[in-house]
Amino acid sequence: MNDNSMTINSYQAALAEGRASPLDWWHFCAAQIEKCEPEVRAWEALAVAAPELDADLADKPLFGVPVGIKDIIETVDFPTGWGTGGYLQTSSSLVDASLVTLLQKQGALVMGKTVSTELAFFTPGKTRNPHDPSRTPGGSSSGSAAAVAAGMVPLAFGTQTAGSMIRPASYCGVFGFKPTFDTLSAAGVKSFSPSLDTLGWFARNIEDICTTFSALTRAPNIAPWEDLVGVRVGIHSLPNALPADDDVVQALATAQARLQNAGAELVQLPLDERYEALVEHQKVVMAYEAAQTLASEYSLLSDRMSLKLVELIEEGKAIDYLQYREAMLAADSLRQALTAVFDTKADVILAASATGEAPEGLESTGDSIYCRAWTLLGVPCINLPFSTGKTGMPVGVQLIADRWQDQRLLEIVSTLISRGVVA
Amino acid sequence: MNDNSMTINSYQAALAEGRASPLDWWHFCAAQIEKCEPEVRAWEALAVAAPELDADLADKPLFGVPVGIKDIIETVDFPTGWGTGGYLQTSSSLVDASLVTLLQKQGALVMGKTVSTELAFFTPGKTRNPHDPSRTPGGSSSGSAAAVAAGMVPLAFGTQTAGSMIRPASYCGVFGFKPTFDTLSAAGVKSFSPSLDTLGWFARNIEDICTTFSALTRAPNIAPWEDLVGVRVGIHSLPNALPADDDVVQALATAQARLQNAGAELVQLPLDERYEALVEHQKVVMAYEAAQTLASEYSLLSDRMSLKLVELIEEGKAIDYLQYREAMLAADSLRQALTAVFDTKADVILAASATGEAPEGLESTGDSIYCRAWTLLGVPCINLPFSTGKTGMPVGVQLIADRWQDQRLLEIVSTLISRGVVA
Repeated sequence: MNDNSMTINSYQAALAEGRASPLDWWHFCAAQIEKCEPEVRAWEALAVAAPELDADLADKPLFGVPVGIKDIIETVDFPTGWGTGGYLQTSSSLVDASLVTLLQKQGALVMGKTVSTELAFFTPGKTRNPHDPSRTPGGSSSGSAAAVAAGMVPLAFGTQTAGSMIRPASYCGVFGFKPTFDTLSAAGVKSFSPSLDTLGWFARNIEDICTTFSALTRAPNIAPWEDLVGVRVGIHSLPNALPADDDVVQALATAQARLQNAGAELVQLPLDERYEALVEHQKVVMAYEAAQTLASEYSLLSDRMSLKLVELIEEGKAIDYLQYREAMLAADSLRQALTAVFDTKADVILAASATGEAPEGLESTGDSIYCRAWTLLGVPCINLPFSTGKTGMPVGVQLIADRWQDQRLLEIVSTLISRGVVA
Repeated sequence: MNDNSMTINSYQAALAEGRASPLDWWHFCAAQIEKCEPEVRAWEALAVAAPELDADLADKPLFGVPVGIKDIIETVDFPTGWGTGGYLQTSSSLVDASLVTLLQKQGALVMGKTVSTELAFFTPGKTRNPHDPSRTPGGSSSGSAAAVAAGMVPLAFGTQTAGSMIRPASYCGVFGFKPTFDTLSAAGVKSFSPSLDTLGWFARNIEDICTTFSALTRAPNIAPWEDLVGVRVGIHSLPNALPADDDVVQALATAQARLQNAGAELVQLPLDERYEALVEHQKVVMAYEAAQTLASEYSLLSDRMSLKLVELIEEGKAIDYLQYREAMLAADSLRQALTAVFDTKADVILAASATGEAPEGLESTGDSIYCRAWTLLGVPCINLPFSTGKTGMPVGVQLIADRWQDQRLLEIVSTLISRGVVA
């Protein structure tokens, strides 16, 4: 069994043809975890034994697929610690988060809980970047991105409130997909900023990203097109003011060339200065909502919380309702304006995923500045593991579509990949 | 101490002037509960003793105010049963729902947990209408509406996903306010349909609705204006197709006359047939999201669930992603279109709260059809206890504003009330 070339669909085919057994992938992953986990530290909790298979699920699209679940997502079979290192923890959840049940009903096997930063904010957990253990994997979905990158599971789930999916995907060199806001129910996922928190997933190939999308939403299957002729790719990074590293500039330039080679048309996108303000609006919304949402945790446990989180909550408590309202209204208005841009000028937007390669050290999970605006807009974003930077670490770029254009976005990315343009 | 004439602000004044003690209202409510609860059955759990007061909170706007919390909202100090009658229950929540902490930080005293329908859907709990115990109080926030109506607490919290605040407020003859979607964090509130679920509150007077809004959001205090000259009130009920009872038609006609007397201008609002379709879109969103959101509960406990809930979840599982997406896109588009209506034609909209008086019997909580569209649009709605129907039961009407125009809506209603036009 060669994990690296395998996709979820090819595994299902192997199962159907008797070339594989339903627990093969599980055992392969368990061996991979034994090998990599001491260095990568992606897991908070692991299954102690192979699961019992439900034969009734044998025809489901995720049958036998091992998955990692970020530790801010509640599970009956595993403890949940919400990335707090133990100051908030339960081993007695009454029900699973809805995502976990949806996955299990599609035949997936939960391998364990992956490391999250503290309550999915910026204070890191123990996880290291599989490409260089002296560097951060990014966050907050640190363990999920690293586990997929290290081949410990083919699929892992995370959340994005600022840049918690796209950034670690870029740093770890995997695909990371944040669907349109509200696509997956966040029931059982620890809230941080309810109007921003979005469930998403990591995989090593685009086909698995697409298979998972269809399995969880029951959307029609996604297949690549012939080419990208007629597809308009808008070029823009938010915010413009912050220059990305050369690595990212280079990756974007190469991505543009390859998109053109696949037939796409590049369109310079003048998004006006109102879009630049979205980064600040996102910070206002996130802080104001976090101060509300974590009010009980803060009241009971602030002495155990990291300084970063305490500062954010104090900042949020000081934000005026009218300022919050203004940020929410601005986001609303720009969501509408962006729909007009997508309707008339571009099918997708190409932008930086992160400011550069994964930073050295484990004290910080890096900067989410290139993701904040898109998260506030609720648009689907996907990181493409595109190239490597000057020190050989992965550098991704993201493609972005309008809300509810997830299928079209995934079709475009699938086409790009099928043409050998990426990875 | 005369509860009926007291407002939260007048109680604070009495405390400041030494005319009342901080636990007076608590004891008054405890006595009222002892008297009314055997008939009304509004509570799932009650505090066993008067709480310890935190003197540091003496200057907070809700100091000493007893409140009821709907039993789908988690609490550390009380068990939470989510309206299930025991098939899902916990006495060991690690943290309170954020709302509960926000209330306590403002000085409020939690009196107990109020009855919810099963998981906040349509299967009734034990609560009876205080105006006629043979009738439903409405739902799903049954206990909160009834507790306030019976004078057992001045303030109680509920949620609305279809019509779960406005309808019981109308049936029970109290003010019920559902703020703009996202105004209060729903962390710790059982999700049903995350893009619809909205926290709100009941009170017996508009001043308490306003005081609570400012206390929880830190918005500026709300005061009535001189009159309603210059205010345009749009007249429309959604859906048009369904004729309301004579009681409601009469209440709306009287409301119109009184609004005009207060100086407002009435504007017939032609909302086109796309708005009529919102009721069906709301049903699609609610069923699709509930099937996802309650996937784990359904998987573990479907044999204990009511038939109504099982049917909804099965219906939701059968809904196609593309149909859900269409409903979400339609809602988005009409949110924008409605903003244009509010900008150009009307400051608020007057509409029916429910189809008539509270229905007889306790098997049903009534019909939420007049609320579904507004909930999907995320707009703030307030029920005004306006008049009585042909059998003497309360009949309310609702006023609706654009998203984030909550303050303006509450100012308009305050003005109406201060002019003696209602109640």
